[in-house]
Amino acid sequence: MKQLFFALALVAAPAIADPLPSWNDTAAKARIISFVDSVTDPKSDAYVTPAARIATFDNDGTLWAEQPVYFQLIYAVDQVAKMGAADPAILTSDALKAAAAKDYKALLATGKEGLVEVLRASHADMPLEQFHADVAAWLDEARHPTTGMRYDEMIYQPMLELLTYLRDQGFKTYIVSGGGIQFIRAFAEDAYGIPPEQVIGSSTTSRYEVIDGVPTIIKGGELFFVDDKAGKPVGIMHHIGRRPILAGGNSDGDFEMLEFSTAGDGARLGLIVHHTDAEREFAYDREGHIGVLNRGQDEADARGWVLIDMKNDWAKVFPKTAE
Amino acid sequence: MKQLFFALALVAAPAIADPLPSWNDTAAKARIISFVDSVTDPKSDAYVTPAARIATFDNDGTLWAEQPVYFQLIYAVDQVAKMGAADPAILTSDALKAAAAKDYKALLATGKEGLVEVLRASHADMPLEQFHADVAAWLDEARHPTTGMRYDEMIYQPMLELLTYLRDQGFKTYIVSGGGIQFIRAFAEDAYGIPPEQVIGSSTTSRYEVIDGVPTIIKGGELFFVDDKAGKPVGIMHHIGRRPILAGGNSDGDFEMLEFSTAGDGARLGLIVHHTDAEREFAYDREGHIGVLNRGQDEADARGWVLIDMKNDWAKVFPKTAE
Ligand SMILES: [Ca+2]
Ligand SMILES: [Ca+2]
Repeated sequence: MKQLFFALALVAAPAIADPLPSWNDTAAKARIISFVDSVTDPKSDAYVTPAARIATFDNDGTLWAEQPVYFQLIYAVDQVAKMGAADPAILTSDALKAAAAKDYKALLATGKEGLVEVLRASHADMPLEQFHADVAAWLDEARHPTTGMRYDEMIYQPMLELLTYLRDQGFKTYIVSGGGIQFIRAFAEDAYGIPPEQVIGSSTTSRYEVIDGVPTIIKGGELFFVDDKAGKPVGIMHHIGRRPILAGGNSDGDFEMLEFSTAGDGARLGLIVHHTDAEREFAYDREGHIGVLNRGQDEADARGWVLIDMKNDWAKVFPKTAE
Repeated sequence: MKQLFFALALVAAPAIADPLPSWNDTAAKARIISFVDSVTDPKSDAYVTPAARIATFDNDGTLWAEQPVYFQLIYAVDQVAKMGAADPAILTSDALKAAAAKDYKALLATGKEGLVEVLRASHADMPLEQFHADVAAWLDEARHPTTGMRYDEMIYQPMLELLTYLRDQGFKTYIVSGGGIQFIRAFAEDAYGIPPEQVIGSSTTSRYEVIDGVPTIIKGGELFFVDDKAGKPVGIMHHIGRRPILAGGNSDGDFEMLEFSTAGDGARLGLIVHHTDAEREFAYDREGHIGVLNRGQDEADARGWVLIDMKNDWAKVFPKTAE
């Protein structure tokens, strides 16, 4: 009799397939599934209509890696190097010369102004379509300095499963990043299944011009919006116009987004990816230039946010590496 | 035998129900249906995947009426009158006093600065949620000066049918308006079935504050983005990130949106609502303060855009009036 039940359980298994197979069976996974069950069950007090199932995720360090520096900065440096090789005359400053030499230390020494100069040279004053094509071409060629992987393969398998699971449960999934809105749009649909209209990020101004009869959007270089820290809830209400019920981030730059998203009525979920896995990815939190996480760690428990421990909660990190 | 075919045709009729019953059987309707058929038929050379079926519509004069002045200005004046009745001390300028007296002529005489002052007094420095609630309350109370209708009933039945038809055919429908993004979001979902995240418009800055422990977005008063004329394609690429394949407007403020949307590869459709019906709605085009249409009329034919003649192409105008 016991064997029959066992056999039946095996047969029935596909019907209750695990939506998050790359997550270990720890509290983090249980909290996520319990939250999703509660807001999607029409009989639950916490039920949320599909239209209000908005989930927002940071990108760098939350959906893909961000070490040793933000990948978008690597793109900027690689582009300036490429442009400088074609025409050395454009390398008119220490910052541009440092970028062309891929000397990050010298580049960072030129300060914020130098960085802005390199970002502008690689991101501005070109048709938006060309920028998207340039980023796509770079993703095809560039490889990460320590893993040797494509940058768009350094995305987190457990987060891909979470995005798919949420969409299958009627959620609309958004990226809300301090990175460039158009940079992320160049790969978000292929990498994450997130269409361009569901990407929110920092941006520069742009303008409309008809060039030789062709209507064109020209990406400009003046700062338009900084989608970081308190800018994240502002960007969310500008683009989406309603409060998310789930938000995920990895650093204190996401604090206000999680605070805002988890403060509304009804069931809410805040997630923080904690980089604890030096072996399979990177381990960092309270110190450094990238992804600093202090307040989020200190207040997660009291606020009911789930701290995701990469090392213990994730069975797998990147889609293409062995487990 | 003939009778049998006739009977069968009657029985089959519901299966081929007219998606646009409030449109007369004129060329405009035929062009719309032929376009939609061509981009949704997988066997058509003009086939477009559902993800790229983006349709953008102006709001004032395209989805709802805009005479004798933009309804949002009427909201601003009504709010200042209400605030002034509660506390006359706030009426510190000629513009605010004119608004409180609902004296549009005197208000317009104060020029652009006066208008901005009235817009700011009624739209800024308050929680976004309160603004949405204020607009909803106003829509419940206010009535149009000549029709006596609710403002959100002065929406065009043929355009509602078009929006529903497009969505049924896999399109994502957007509003791209020179009006305020948050003003329109207060009613767009109920009125048009368009969710807040698919409304693009002009905006002021806003900021995030935690007030007495409550995370709050405060609507500010500094101009952030003007979503009109060349701003429309810029707003589209900022919010949506891809080129629409269908765009509809009613004035030269929509010219660049139609130009941009109809310039891409493949089948494209540009629509212009031409206000030709003084009896059922209003008749205006080349002159006046509102909805001026010169270039659109002059170039529609050459550009292949459909000029919709309200009087002849629409069997019905507003949902709640007799035909
Ligand atoms: Ca991050
Ligand atoms: Ca208009």
